Amino acid sequence: MVKKVLKFGGTSVGTSERIQHVAKIIKKERSLGNKIIAIVSAMAGQTNELLRLSKEISEEFNKRELDVLLSSGEQVTCALLAGCLINSNVKAKSWLNWQIPILTVGEHSNARIINIHIEKINKYLNEDGVAIIPGFQGISKNGDITSLGRGGSDATAVAVAKIFNADICEIYTDVDGVFSTDPNKIPVAKKIDKISYDEMLELSSLGAKVIQSSAVQTAMMYDIPLEVKSTFTERKGTKIFSQENIDYTKSVTGVAYSKDDAKITIIGVEDKPGVAANIFEPLSKAQINVDMVIQNISSDQKTTDITFTVKRDEVSKTKKILKGNNEIIYKEIIENDKVAKVSIVGAGMVSTPGVTYRMFRALSDEDINILAISTSEIKLSVIIEEENILKAIKKLHTIFDLD
Amino acid sequence: MVKKVLKFGGTSVGTSERIQHVAKIIKKERSLGNKIIAIVSAMAGQTNELLRLSKEISEEFNKRELDVLLSSGEQVTCALLAGCLINSNVKAKSWLNWQIPILTVGEHSNARIINIHIEKINKYLNEDGVAIIPGFQGISKNGDITSLGRGGSDATAVAVAKIFNADICEIYTDVDGVFSTDPNKIPVAKKIDKISYDEMLELSSLGAKVIQSSAVQTAMMYDIPLEVKSTFTERKGTKIFSQENIDYTKSVTGVAYSKDDAKITIIGVEDKPGVAANIFEPLSKAQINVDMVIQNISSDQKTTDITFTVKRDEVSKTKKILKGNNEIIYKEIIENDKVAKVSIVGAGMVSTPGVTYRMFRALSDEDINILAISTSEIKLSVIIEEENILKAIKKLHTIFDLD
Repeated sequence: MVKKVLKFGGTSVGTSERIQHVAKIIKKERSLGNKIIAIVSAMAGQTNELLRLSKEISEEFNKRELDVLLSSGEQVTCALLAGCLINSNVKAKSWLNWQIPILTVGEHSNARIINIHIEKINKYLNEDGVAIIPGFQGISKNGDITSLGRGGSDATAVAVAKIFNADICEIYTDVDGVFSTDPNKIPVAKKIDKISYDEMLELSSLGAKVIQSSAVQTAMMYDIPLEVKSTFTERKGTKIFSQENIDYTKSVTGVAYSKDDAKITIIGVEDKPGVAANIFEPLSKAQINVDMVIQNISSDQKTTDITFTVKRDEVSKTKKILKGNNEIIYKEIIENDKVAKVSIVGAGMVSTPGVTYRMFRALSDEDINILAISTSEIKLSVIIEEENILKAIKKLHTIFDLD
Repeated sequence: MVKKVLKFGGTSVGTSERIQHVAKIIKKERSLGNKIIAIVSAMAGQTNELLRLSKEISEEFNKRELDVLLSSGEQVTCALLAGCLINSNVKAKSWLNWQIPILTVGEHSNARIINIHIEKINKYLNEDGVAIIPGFQGISKNGDITSLGRGGSDATAVAVAKIFNADICEIYTDVDGVFSTDPNKIPVAKKIDKISYDEMLELSSLGAKVIQSSAVQTAMMYDIPLEVKSTFTERKGTKIFSQENIDYTKSVTGVAYSKDDAKITIIGVEDKPGVAANIFEPLSKAQINVDMVIQNISSDQKTTDITFTVKRDEVSKTKKILKGNNEIIYKEIIENDKVAKVSIVGAGMVSTPGVTYRMFRALSDEDINILAISTSEIKLSVIIEEENILKAIKKLHTIFDLD
């Protein structure tokens, strides 16, 4: 007997047929004698539909009421899944956020779970019941409904796994697991069997959207084993746990990419001490996240060019702040939002010499120009022209033996 | 300053545009200085959509979970309306059933409100806030969500009006008020300005579907003035209050009809004491509601024919019970479900001689055969062939000066 938290995402519960399928998965787990808490998202499309309604009323819809609105989505799924299990002779019950309760702090649409009352649900689990809990929501100390932000169902699942001391938290989704790169783009992409929390964090922040980053962080902090697996196949998924439990036979675990970035270059900046601080301090104060920074000495040696990357949707805000900044003198600002970020991720990289060199050589062999570089212990990212992205992913996937 | 409970039905809040319109009505009431509690239904179609999902899973969907499912509908409307009001600079807040709470007794999908905590909402009203409350739902003493059954939003509105001691309860709907007969069938149907609770009860149980009967009963019991009016026009609605406050200039207030009935005749029943009891006792025990009963002596004077009406959807159950009943001897059972019930309703009838006679004469003038008759102090109903229904309503509407 193990205690499991199973989380089912929006596509896994997108229709009544799929909810019936999820009920079968839970019934099978129960037949093995496992104690089950299921966390469910809103049915696929439902949250967007509710958001659409709120936007028809106002683009600036009141945040408290938006949480009341959106939380209805998971309530619907909870009831349908509980009803379906009962119909299949599995003892089950929906537990809404206020019935448990799940307590949160923080502002509406961005709250954090701080506590979950466990007595009633533990009693129910001990009486062989399956507890169905809505993801993504909780209540504040004032008794208002709060939401954790989109994708927050993963956060609920990990928090529930931690507080109920579950043996494992399984994230059911519409793909087989975490892949070495995007299987829709690169057919030879391979499912990763085991991955460390750190690698997963790098992959998910870089665009592998199977699990929310902050949920992985929480799991890492409390050492909760995760497994990402498909609702629709019986294949093994990807196990996510701490690095010391993994044997690294490969230096690189996966190749990730994103098209969210844009490159901004300030040409002819006066080259004197403090200029970088003068540029980046106002951006930081405006909550603009600057990723990579490169500084070149220009030909006249009195001025310099500074290149950096930001998220694409922050380009105009960034330019406005730069132009209104009287602390800096420069010739021109140019931008390029036709760029992409490609990253290789692997906890084995740090112990494998030459990974960096092999990446650069491989891109150069394909005539791909590197526009910016950033590194961490387990990640190496480059910015390239967007048109080269597919070529780059394919090449890197091959040379690091991931095909 | 008056305290008002305003109830908005499903069509009144069926789209975001209509919710914006409802917000305007409430804003106007606030500008007059009135204290407002609004009760809302689920958006039109939403409850049916949720029911459809539950039926895809099971026709025998668990009742507790069905209430969790359906209650999400009103939650959505509450949030949208509250958000819309806040956006229009009206202080407003959604109060879900468990946040108030609204306490109920009775089984799922058929619960009754027994208490509503008033402190928090009264405080909020005194701070010039508009409280938005979901209709149709509450919580049980175990903390489970319960529903009052379909149309239960009217019941919520009247219960809130009573417990908060409101001056009036206004039922906003998609028609101008209560009509002297169905305006879709009879174009000369006229809106009734004032009607007594009793008359309204007879009209609504007979098919005038603007307000739920049990809500009218509660309003009558506690003498809460009601007004049924249109969300979409500025016309005056129909005021419903106690009989002593109404001057009756007309003997008949309205003509109602229904097509829910069927006529069953048992031919050649042995005519001896106790035969009627032997027939009707088993039907009553099986919860079959027998409406009108007629007994004729047959030509041989040893047997009799007994005719009665039941709801159409109970015909086969009724016949099965009759056929399995060994206490009675008869020749044959015949049924006719192509019948309709037409009723004239009016608190002035009792003091006006000849109403009965005039009704029978009018129908006879139109060659309409009366198949059964039943009467109460303020109502006179006849069963006729369904094909004659329109002709009958028109004629009665005219001769009782309702055109």
